[in-house]
Amino acid sequence: MRPESRSMRESILAAAVQLFAQYGYHAAPLRDIARIAGIQAASIYHHYPSKQALLVEIMETHMLRLNASLEHILKENDDPLQRLHAAIANHIRLHTTYKEEFFIIDTEMRALEDEHRPYILSLRDKYEALLQELLQDGMEREIFRRSDVKIASYAIIAMCTEVATWFRPNGRLSVQQVNTIYRQFITEGLLLPPGVAAPMPDETAHLL
Amino acid sequence: MRPESRSMRESILAAAVQLFAQYGYHAAPLRDIARIAGIQAASIYHHYPSKQALLVEIMETHMLRLNASLEHILKENDDPLQRLHAAIANHIRLHTTYKEEFFIIDTEMRALEDEHRPYILSLRDKYEALLQELLQDGMEREIFRRSDVKIASYAIIAMCTEVATWFRPNGRLSVQQVNTIYRQFITEGLLLPPGVAAPMPDETAHLL
Repeated sequence: MRPESRSMRESILAAAVQLFAQYGYHAAPLRDIARIAGIQAASIYHHYPSKQALLVEIMETHMLRLNASLEHILKENDDPLQRLHAAIANHIRLHTTYKEEFFIIDTEMRALEDEHRPYILSLRDKYEALLQELLQDGMEREIFRRSDVKIASYAIIAMCTEVATWFRPNGRLSVQQVNTIYRQFITEGLLLPPGVAAPMPDETAHLL
Repeated sequence: MRPESRSMRESILAAAVQLFAQYGYHAAPLRDIARIAGIQAASIYHHYPSKQALLVEIMETHMLRLNASLEHILKENDDPLQRLHAAIANHIRLHTTYKEEFFIIDTEMRALEDEHRPYILSLRDKYEALLQELLQDGMEREIFRRSDVKIASYAIIAMCTEVATWFRPNGRLSVQQVNTIYRQFITEGLLLPPGVAAPMPDETAHLL
């Protein structure tokens, strides 16, 4: 691909991210995306066959990146707690760096057409499976408490994803501080440890 | 209001919820809402002045209900842990009962026009403030570990809200089982307690 084409594709993608995040996929006309990218509406089809192709490329790019980074963490670390800390930090880093892209992933799954939807959903399933592998291994090695692996993975993903909606780059806390607070919340919970507060009975034991 | 009018308003609202959740606010035409509600497109204006009025009513109704139920919990209970358990159960119950309505609240905030947006945001702020009051009180009374109250509230809201996206009424777990698992995760975290696993240093202490 010629350099000027690559750069035009990037401009079109950036304009699509901006408008999909601001107005939603269905409310963002292709001609407005073209205008912001600085290209004639008719010429946009030389780069992308449809608005749907833009949505798929945005989602695919960032979900593949998320999955690859978590796979890397699992390969590079063996200790369950180190893996969990790295996974939390990685999820928060990507979701605060690519806020709009992940907001689109979060809200526009229903806008995917035909075979694109099962494909993108399979990437999300893959990420959940990787995190579940991490948690399962930590439970089997008795670092993590035995609990419902799927629900724990959903809870961690939900809270770390949400950081993108309220995090401000020049706000009260740095990404690193948010990481540290989340890490403690996820590993130790809200209650003061036994000895200070009375220990809780294991109320979920009968569910397992 | 005559009974038949009230029932028509309810039919219109139900149709709006269905289409906003399925296609998004901007992609759901008022004429389709009218058709599903069984009314002429022109007649819908006798009940609601605009599509925007439907969105505001959906959001307002369910956010007021959420806030009132949490206020009731704070008034009826004094023990921080009982309050927290009740707040988690209440949030999950409402979000699994009104899945589509809360999905709309989660994804269509940007579609609110004029003064509606700050009004609906103020209801969300109110809910966060109530949960923060609960957490702050629990920290001051040394039931909960001292941590960042705002971030803890965001994390709890995010993970309990997400239940609506994956919960299936006839799935593997009941609402009560999900409650119990969430309650343990939020209060005790993933790590096995000290004595089994080594205790973690309090890494967030310097942030407070």
